[in-house]
Amino acid sequence: MIWVGDVPLGRDAPVAVIAGPCSVESFEQFRETAIAVSKAGASLLRGGAFKPRSSPYSFQGLGLSGLKIMRRVADELGLGVVTEAMGVEDVELVAEFTDMVQIGARNMENAPLLEAAARCDRPVLLKRGITATIEEVMVAVETVQALGDGRVVVCERGSRTFEPSLRNSVDISAVAELRLRCNLPVVLDPSHGTGRTDLVRAVALAGVAAGADGLMVEVHPNPPMALSDGFQSLAPADFRDLMTSVQGMAAAVDRPC
Amino acid sequence: MIWVGDVPLGRDAPVAVIAGPCSVESFEQFRETAIAVSKAGASLLRGGAFKPRSSPYSFQGLGLSGLKIMRRVADELGLGVVTEAMGVEDVELVAEFTDMVQIGARNMENAPLLEAAARCDRPVLLKRGITATIEEVMVAVETVQALGDGRVVVCERGSRTFEPSLRNSVDISAVAELRLRCNLPVVLDPSHGTGRTDLVRAVALAGVAAGADGLMVEVHPNPPMALSDGFQSLAPADFRDLMTSVQGMAAAVDRPC
Amino acid sequence: MIWVGDVPLGRDAPVAVIAGPCSVESFEQFRETAIAVSKAGASLLRGGAFKPRSSPYSFQGLGLSGLKIMRRVADELGLGVVTEAMGVEDVELVAEFTDMVQIGARNMENAPLLEAAARCDRPVLLKRGITATIEEVMVAVETVQALGDGRVVVCERGSRTFEPSLRNSVDISAVAELRLRCNLPVVLDPSHGTGRTDLVRAVALAGVAAGADGLMVEVHPNPPMALSDGFQSLAPADFRDLMTSVQGMAAAVDRPC
Amino acid sequence: MIWVGDVPLGRDAPVAVIAGPCSVESFEQFRETAIAVSKAGASLLRGGAFKPRSSPYSFQGLGLSGLKIMRRVADELGLGVVTEAMGVEDVELVAEFTDMVQIGARNMENAPLLEAAARCDRPVLLKRGITATIEEVMVAVETVQALGDGRVVVCERGSRTFEPSLRNSVDISAVAELRLRCNLPVVLDPSHGTGRTDLVRAVALAGVAAGADGLMVEVHPNPPMALSDGFQSLAPADFRDLMTSVQGMAAAVDRPC
Repeated sequence: MIWVGDVPLGRDAPVAVIAGPCSVESFEQFRETAIAVSKAGASLLRGGAFKPRSSPYSFQGLGLSGLKIMRRVADELGLGVVTEAMGVEDVELVAEFTDMVQIGARNMENAPLLEAAARCDRPVLLKRGITATIEEVMVAVETVQALGDGRVVVCERGSRTFEPSLRNSVDISAVAELRLRCNLPVVLDPSHGTGRTDLVRAVALAGVAAGADGLMVEVHPNPPMALSDGFQSLAPADFRDLMTSVQGMAAAVDRPC
Repeated sequence: MIWVGDVPLGRDAPVAVIAGPCSVESFEQFRETAIAVSKAGASLLRGGAFKPRSSPYSFQGLGLSGLKIMRRVADELGLGVVTEAMGVEDVELVAEFTDMVQIGARNMENAPLLEAAARCDRPVLLKRGITATIEEVMVAVETVQALGDGRVVVCERGSRTFEPSLRNSVDISAVAELRLRCNLPVVLDPSHGTGRTDLVRAVALAGVAAGADGLMVEVHPNPPMALSDGFQSLAPADFRDLMTSVQGMAAAVDRPC
Repeated sequence: MIWVGDVPLGRDAPVAVIAGPCSVESFEQFRETAIAVSKAGASLLRGGAFKPRSSPYSFQGLGLSGLKIMRRVADELGLGVVTEAMGVEDVELVAEFTDMVQIGARNMENAPLLEAAARCDRPVLLKRGITATIEEVMVAVETVQALGDGRVVVCERGSRTFEPSLRNSVDISAVAELRLRCNLPVVLDPSHGTGRTDLVRAVALAGVAAGADGLMVEVHPNPPMALSDGFQSLAPADFRDLMTSVQGMAAAVDRPC
Repeated sequence: MIWVGDVPLGRDAPVAVIAGPCSVESFEQFRETAIAVSKAGASLLRGGAFKPRSSPYSFQGLGLSGLKIMRRVADELGLGVVTEAMGVEDVELVAEFTDMVQIGARNMENAPLLEAAARCDRPVLLKRGITATIEEVMVAVETVQALGDGRVVVCERGSRTFEPSLRNSVDISAVAELRLRCNLPVVLDPSHGTGRTDLVRAVALAGVAAGADGLMVEVHPNPPMALSDGFQSLAPADFRDLMTSVQGMAAAVDRPC
């Protein structure tokens, strides 16, 4: 079991839900989202300050201001917060302002970044690469473990396959297989995993049924107006419904939530 | 909702579990398996008489004798039974002895076979091709619907991806997406979907959580001695445990089982 | 080396080009195409009479009339002709009217069809399944070899991958690997392999460079008006240019054409 | 057309061959290889100083010493040299000692690294990510172009697919497609593309036939003793044979080499 701020994550802990917007767009937007997901029962906040740029022309994130917004809101609500470090040079800053440092899917095999994250004094959330094999995930885990303090969370977030109607395919076996391979907490991200708001709920519940120790869900106060990932973000009301179902599902697999 | 023998399948029906050995190996073997899965709560029996030959040297199935064994045992226990027709020439025979005709993944785009199955007086269980897109599944469904009486069950059974540690990857989003695309019953096969006994349970439960209307599970009295697919077959005791969990999971998503 | 009609195919034979329309649409259309490809240097004709139906609403082929048209034109021009048999029940008819029986990619693992084709007195052109592994191609070859007279030609035709901008991806290593695994003739189909007219030429030449013993190319007198596969068919003038380049390429790898 | 040191690369230039060992292991090993490939006709040298670590326990490269060895040998032989920068902090050093900075497949979407490479005063060799779409390659190209001086070379190096018998699959259409999408030089790496010494030759020739402007080939004086990638490295004698064939192939497509 691993502690992220005050929140335990792992086999013997309740199913934890990490929620928030893809990008921190403003203080208002992040605070509104954070209050909504907190009331609905989320354990940790998430948000992006340095965005993985899939194009040089898309929104690049608020950077340091985004980190400060997240910290301020998290402190106000008494919650922990997770965000991604995109480069070695960002790790210290991210570690200073947040409670867990995320390594994104694009960087799962970026050894210098994994090593920098391992050395900072925070748990590391390691997202599976978009076509990384489970063996390669284990190598990345080991790279962090070799230098770090053992606090690693593995996140399944869907893989690229031949299927064109979904952003990614969530291999649900991978959740179970990752749990067989290591005793680290395994979290599922149904938002990136499906890329579609209308599929997030089914995949989130499937994840808990398959043994995920946590979920990571994108929520935005007004998804159609989001600066990034609106098509896969839940509105606050849909997130509340999801939380109710997740709690029922957790009970069905004999876990609190 | 579709009736297979006396068993309803679909959104408004209980979650149905179809279980039995990969191959009918003998009267004793099939009867023993059938009694065990029936006691544990399976709704329908499954078994293979004409085997999809992945090699000309592997077990080819008992053919007509296999069909007769399945019918006799199914009648004795008052259950329906499902088996695969491998070619146009087998369809009539399969339809005569069983309650639902299965089209295997390898044949999902075999138009003459789909048409023959559509014309026989039985529901058709259509398995998704190993790398068929959801669009292609819908075309195959339509091919059967165009000539048949509308009784089609779609079965997600895992897809081939880049991952070497699993026989197939079960894209759990596909269960939800198939339900959005049509109102036919959607069944999940966690045995072929994972190819590994130790992953069947997690994936089966995930399927019910994601909205599957049924499961199709391989069970063998003695998996290590099975003539085919032993590595992915459950022993009867493990199947009983699975059934208990499936019932809890069905309740959690507000469905009987 | 294998003889298809009067045409040798294999390592010690010239690079053979099989050309013609995707579908036989009419006597005029097939004859015009056949004359054009014959003049340009094609060794064998191709055409479809029973179409692999990717939708129940698309063109289904002329059936027996199509077979008769192909035979009549082939005899007039003194060429051999290849066409696909879609089901066990078509094999005898296809064998009667043509010089080589093609098994399509969708049917590479259709064991009853492979066996029927093996038993007819014609060479068999076996197309690789859309996501068949090379090992599975070898099993299909062996299924035909076990019952047939050894005259099998293997056809690489591209595989489905994650790439959306191409119909299929041609793994050029597969041409070399198939040649290492067996001493059967290996043919490449750049038309299905790319799905785009503007890429056919580059991939065809790459195939000869990698050691292909033949090419299979779709040609149509008026591609935009084709009833099927117009987007990947060459116009006769483009086919003539291709043949000139193929001859140069064959010389560069020390083979006649 | 782009100049890398004294070597022109592009449509109007001869087919250029970049060759050398996967890793610089010692001065002797690099010098011996460099002399051999230079005599055989290679245009540029390659070697790895900072190794992309696929495991924390594998050989990590000689670092700065490796860079100095490459520069010294390149100057002695009057050749240019290419090597990979693994992180933002390495770019300046790599640019100081070499003639072109390589971005590895794992880093194709590492925006900070792309930007650092764009700003250094060297051409950038951008390797396609292992499952990057062509669209994503174009975005990476644009990220470099937006900040750089336009000197970008794109390298196809094979993609991960379902096929287990090859390290990667070389989609030969991609070489042609990349040339249609941009007028940058396109280079093919048949060593990583196949992962097998016995397939390098066929794929290299196919690349030239499909229009590649250059090849990038791993050569080692004694492949079985290589500290990395020996299974896909050519011995010097095999490289000489390959060069002879590449020259013939270049002539067949009307290009010098």
